[in-house]
Amino acid sequence: MIRVGIIGATGYTGEELIRLLVTRPDIELTCLTSRNQVGTKVQDYYPHFKGLIDQAFIAYDPNHIFDLVDVLFLCLPHGVSMEIASAAQGYDVKVIDLGADFRIKDKEVYEAYYGVQQTEPELLAQAVYGLPELYAREIQQANLIANPGCFVTCSLLALLPIIDADFIQKNSIIIDAKTGVSGAGRSAKAANLLTELGNNFYAYNPLTHRHIPEIEQVLNHITKSPVTVQFTPHLLPTERGIYTTIYVDLTSEVSEDKVQQIYKNYYQDNYFIQILEKNQLPQMKAVRASNFTQIQVQIDKRTNRLVIFAVIDNLVKGSAGQAIQNMNLMFGLDQTTGLSQAPIFP
Amino acid sequence: MIRVGIIGATGYTGEELIRLLVTRPDIELTCLTSRNQVGTKVQDYYPHFKGLIDQAFIAYDPNHIFDLVDVLFLCLPHGVSMEIASAAQGYDVKVIDLGADFRIKDKEVYEAYYGVQQTEPELLAQAVYGLPELYAREIQQANLIANPGCFVTCSLLALLPIIDADFIQKNSIIIDAKTGVSGAGRSAKAANLLTELGNNFYAYNPLTHRHIPEIEQVLNHITKSPVTVQFTPHLLPTERGIYTTIYVDLTSEVSEDKVQQIYKNYYQDNYFIQILEKNQLPQMKAVRASNFTQIQVQIDKRTNRLVIFAVIDNLVKGSAGQAIQNMNLMFGLDQTTGLSQAPIFP
Amino acid sequence: MIRVGIIGATGYTGEELIRLLVTRPDIELTCLTSRNQVGTKVQDYYPHFKGLIDQAFIAYDPNHIFDLVDVLFLCLPHGVSMEIASAAQGYDVKVIDLGADFRIKDKEVYEAYYGVQQTEPELLAQAVYGLPELYAREIQQANLIANPGCFVTCSLLALLPIIDADFIQKNSIIIDAKTGVSGAGRSAKAANLLTELGNNFYAYNPLTHRHIPEIEQVLNHITKSPVTVQFTPHLLPTERGIYTTIYVDLTSEVSEDKVQQIYKNYYQDNYFIQILEKNQLPQMKAVRASNFTQIQVQIDKRTNRLVIFAVIDNLVKGSAGQAIQNMNLMFGLDQTTGLSQAPIFP
Amino acid sequence: MIRVGIIGATGYTGEELIRLLVTRPDIELTCLTSRNQVGTKVQDYYPHFKGLIDQAFIAYDPNHIFDLVDVLFLCLPHGVSMEIASAAQGYDVKVIDLGADFRIKDKEVYEAYYGVQQTEPELLAQAVYGLPELYAREIQQANLIANPGCFVTCSLLALLPIIDADFIQKNSIIIDAKTGVSGAGRSAKAANLLTELGNNFYAYNPLTHRHIPEIEQVLNHITKSPVTVQFTPHLLPTERGIYTTIYVDLTSEVSEDKVQQIYKNYYQDNYFIQILEKNQLPQMKAVRASNFTQIQVQIDKRTNRLVIFAVIDNLVKGSAGQAIQNMNLMFGLDQTTGLSQAPIFP
Repeated sequence: MIRVGIIGATGYTGEELIRLLVTRPDIELTCLTSRNQVGTKVQDYYPHFKGLIDQAFIAYDPNHIFDLVDVLFLCLPHGVSMEIASAAQGYDVKVIDLGADFRIKDKEVYEAYYGVQQTEPELLAQAVYGLPELYAREIQQANLIANPGCFVTCSLLALLPIIDADFIQKNSIIIDAKTGVSGAGRSAKAANLLTELGNNFYAYNPLTHRHIPEIEQVLNHITKSPVTVQFTPHLLPTERGIYTTIYVDLTSEVSEDKVQQIYKNYYQDNYFIQILEKNQLPQMKAVRASNFTQIQVQIDKRTNRLVIFAVIDNLVKGSAGQAIQNMNLMFGLDQTTGLSQAPIFP
Repeated sequence: MIRVGIIGATGYTGEELIRLLVTRPDIELTCLTSRNQVGTKVQDYYPHFKGLIDQAFIAYDPNHIFDLVDVLFLCLPHGVSMEIASAAQGYDVKVIDLGADFRIKDKEVYEAYYGVQQTEPELLAQAVYGLPELYAREIQQANLIANPGCFVTCSLLALLPIIDADFIQKNSIIIDAKTGVSGAGRSAKAANLLTELGNNFYAYNPLTHRHIPEIEQVLNHITKSPVTVQFTPHLLPTERGIYTTIYVDLTSEVSEDKVQQIYKNYYQDNYFIQILEKNQLPQMKAVRASNFTQIQVQIDKRTNRLVIFAVIDNLVKGSAGQAIQNMNLMFGLDQTTGLSQAPIFP
Repeated sequence: MIRVGIIGATGYTGEELIRLLVTRPDIELTCLTSRNQVGTKVQDYYPHFKGLIDQAFIAYDPNHIFDLVDVLFLCLPHGVSMEIASAAQGYDVKVIDLGADFRIKDKEVYEAYYGVQQTEPELLAQAVYGLPELYAREIQQANLIANPGCFVTCSLLALLPIIDADFIQKNSIIIDAKTGVSGAGRSAKAANLLTELGNNFYAYNPLTHRHIPEIEQVLNHITKSPVTVQFTPHLLPTERGIYTTIYVDLTSEVSEDKVQQIYKNYYQDNYFIQILEKNQLPQMKAVRASNFTQIQVQIDKRTNRLVIFAVIDNLVKGSAGQAIQNMNLMFGLDQTTGLSQAPIFP
Repeated sequence: MIRVGIIGATGYTGEELIRLLVTRPDIELTCLTSRNQVGTKVQDYYPHFKGLIDQAFIAYDPNHIFDLVDVLFLCLPHGVSMEIASAAQGYDVKVIDLGADFRIKDKEVYEAYYGVQQTEPELLAQAVYGLPELYAREIQQANLIANPGCFVTCSLLALLPIIDADFIQKNSIIIDAKTGVSGAGRSAKAANLLTELGNNFYAYNPLTHRHIPEIEQVLNHITKSPVTVQFTPHLLPTERGIYTTIYVDLTSEVSEDKVQQIYKNYYQDNYFIQILEKNQLPQMKAVRASNFTQIQVQIDKRTNRLVIFAVIDNLVKGSAGQAIQNMNLMFGLDQTTGLSQAPIFP
């Protein structure tokens, strides 16, 4: 039995972790913390958990919590996870941070993009970037995981198989990304009301989104050379989902079949990655509430560009599901444990 | 040129008044007040007004405002309108209150349901209930209008033609009402986020909603006897619209044709009320963004009940549109001035 | 290993059966039939099944199919199931009909409401009505199940605990029902396009819906006296879900606490039925994609009426989930096998 | 009084023309034709027109129709408009084709993309491309207008001010476009059901969409050199609206201020085009149900790219509204006649 704690369990990522873990026979949810809902029963706060979980949210208490858990998921605003991850040192507790604190290896870049100080450079050095399709082996050995950003996960999974290919122009990458609104969290904000967002659509933070340095960091790491990407996030009137349309200039002729084969080969042992057949295109709803990723690649001969389409559920593969995939690896379980439900449609 | 002021112009009812008035050649919007957005340009706050209106929100100032307007629309939380309506006395200013302060004639009932004190009993006595289909003549003479509640408007329009009929059991009235979420206003509330309300539906305040005494007051006034109604509001995942399904026990046999004729006769001179043909049923979207009401009546012979279906746009006929209809009457204009646009579909 | 066949597997109920069964280790999907998609891979037709199921839809062939399955789910238009259920006689195959053919025990009522002939009166007599909360014992022995209608399931579960109580007026029951649009199936119909139904809401077939005789049949069976219900279905702009608001006149005084206790007692051994706590009201989204039912009861002292709120997912408890619950019972499994996933939120 | 005919008046563009014209005092709708709804009252087919229009759809009859109208709007599938436009020759009737038949000047390109024969090369030569912001003078003189495609309108309006600038790399243009589903018309298609499209999002026809040659034709015409654009349309779960995000490589340094000034200058006399202020980004809902276009330009110094954001309502500026704008010009009216309503929000 793995004893699980979730710090910041009232947000959507905390909620999604509970959803995916609450019915697992090998998991015990021992600590679900909240700042504002201490004493509230989880099933009263989230009525869809009625009858599935009896406990109440508790306050985070560093003096007791680390003895009660084998793994801790941190679902916190940036800047807050650092302190808790630090407090966990010395205990036999694995930490999976769903926030941004340990994602950016360059302290200064982190501080510039997030506006807070990186106070744990040593932990930062130890932290493993939790993208299992890329770093499974390192994750298995890790005690501290930086769970990737949602846009980043979808963008990287779409780019990894060809980022090092000699037929692409690396600095031509343009990522036009679209997300459902659960990515904005559960905090009440007028712009995210159904009245405002229903039937609406728009770009936000188009040139300065915090996921830009995270994407570039991983691409740089692979190519060993600086890669600059254009990244534009847009907000969709959907509850869940991330869709990325990626444009890459080709430097030499390559067939669509060959590129598709490269993708299939790259991901052949990765259960959650589905490379679609030639006549198919990904749909956001085809992965809803699941940990799957669907990818398609096409070549536009008129423009000599590669166009890559990829889709994930932002709360599952883009957050809680990937965190559980990481936990499974860290505890020697099959990656897919508890994550093999079919997507929900319609 | 009618000089118009809107007190509380940043909410959805204020916004809707601007939408319906901004392009009228006979109207000048002279004062749009706000507490939190003083100095913000209207078109920056509401980007759909870009290019249509150049002014900024101002603060409400009782020392100047009443000289600048011929009519004042109050879009305020209950309890606040009383004071401003009182301050307007002595000026040549007509006041139309879109809030609840002057709707309930019984001071004690008002105070019990709204939890604030009724400090203006004299004004309350003068206030005319602004349902033009019932009180057009009184409205034409009025200086202070209590604009009806949105649920109340839809419910009363559905019931007026037969509330006094001898073939119905008055105390059997059950109103099952459904509203789009703009009725909840623009304040940020987690429950009204697209994530929470999309694909959701539920009853709220089912036995105690504040529109109950308002409905009963008007019905009592007509029948001269106490009428008790069952009223259950539900929240719909739509931007706009109110739909009421009303059940009434019949006390004697009456044909569907006869009842439909009663409705057609009752509303024959009312442009905004449409009694549907026999094979038609109202749809919420058929009146969207318009001041129209659609009504159908059916008789269920199996159960000996009358079932009445009615639909309005909560922000137009349920609020801003009706307020303008009242203004038109008060200024001797045709009721339909500025309100004859076709509904928006799809 | 239970070998499962689904006749008519391309519609939403067939799809939902696949979703709930495809990952079960004790189930083998041996025959998925279609009229129009023979030879199409299931994962090509429903891309959310990509990677989860490799087989293609086959044609229904009565000469072979009954040897290949232990249980057959029929997801067919009314009038078609009868023939297939008849053909299955003589084989060791249990049949669960998700359509209407065996729901109405009175041949004439069936024929009047559905406009087709009931050609299998003997099978009709054997068929067990598949509402496990009421007929679990009979279901365990059955070979032919009439799986209840979606509105009927939600209405009956809301009414069963008090339908026989001496404090209610049986013929006063009014069911105001609201359904998401997946209840209309996957057939292309202009009225159900997102353009037409988004932001829309309306009643349809208000006095003549086919679920009326089905509700009354069960209530009659319990009370041993003819019960007439008022039933009005409405269409919601949601993908899934059924919500019923039910009004019942009280004949004598009874406390809300007492009625809530009656509900809790009635359903105490029924995992899927959740009676909410006093301050809670059901939400459609709180049961999404799950087999749960949430119910609340309130008493309005002003009107002396009981108001009952109930909610299910129409594709799960209202159809495929309940069918699987029945299958579990028929095969001696725990009712909840494969049906214990938490609802999806947001 | 202008006598107006609409051929193919039951689709969404026909409906939108009626909505925008029905309340105009200077317009008489004399002929609304349909193939399938001959004899059906317009208000029965489109219940939101209840009370606004009394006539029924008629059959298209070339022997009578041209005497009854001053202008004819063609809302027809491609291939059908040609014949009717040809039949109108010899009558004093202006023709505005909302379909594609006269948009593509190159007969062979048209035939390759649309799969039908261009049988009216002479008319094609006379037809004026109906983008008033570019060709107002020609439109004023025209008798036959090819009303632009919806994606094309939004893309061109976003690109026109800088397509000829020496600081951009013309062949680097990437248009990532997103449309609400009304663009797909009113025909019943399972993929556009609320069940399928709600909460969904995906690219369709990404490399081969028919609007590609139309965009390139106009850009070529301006630059006098072949321009190749990358164009990817996506389907949004919204009723209306088109949003384009456009990426263009810069060839030399230019300031964001300067580019914004170029846009403001270019459109200074165009009422319907709004260049947003520096801190603002377009929102789809900010132009809903209106003829306005909102545009913003930004420069990403990291990548040396221009990013252009533009938004229209596909049924208004992208179709019926623009057609009326063209009609106004052709009849010597102010462009904005009947098109100055404020957008609908929320």
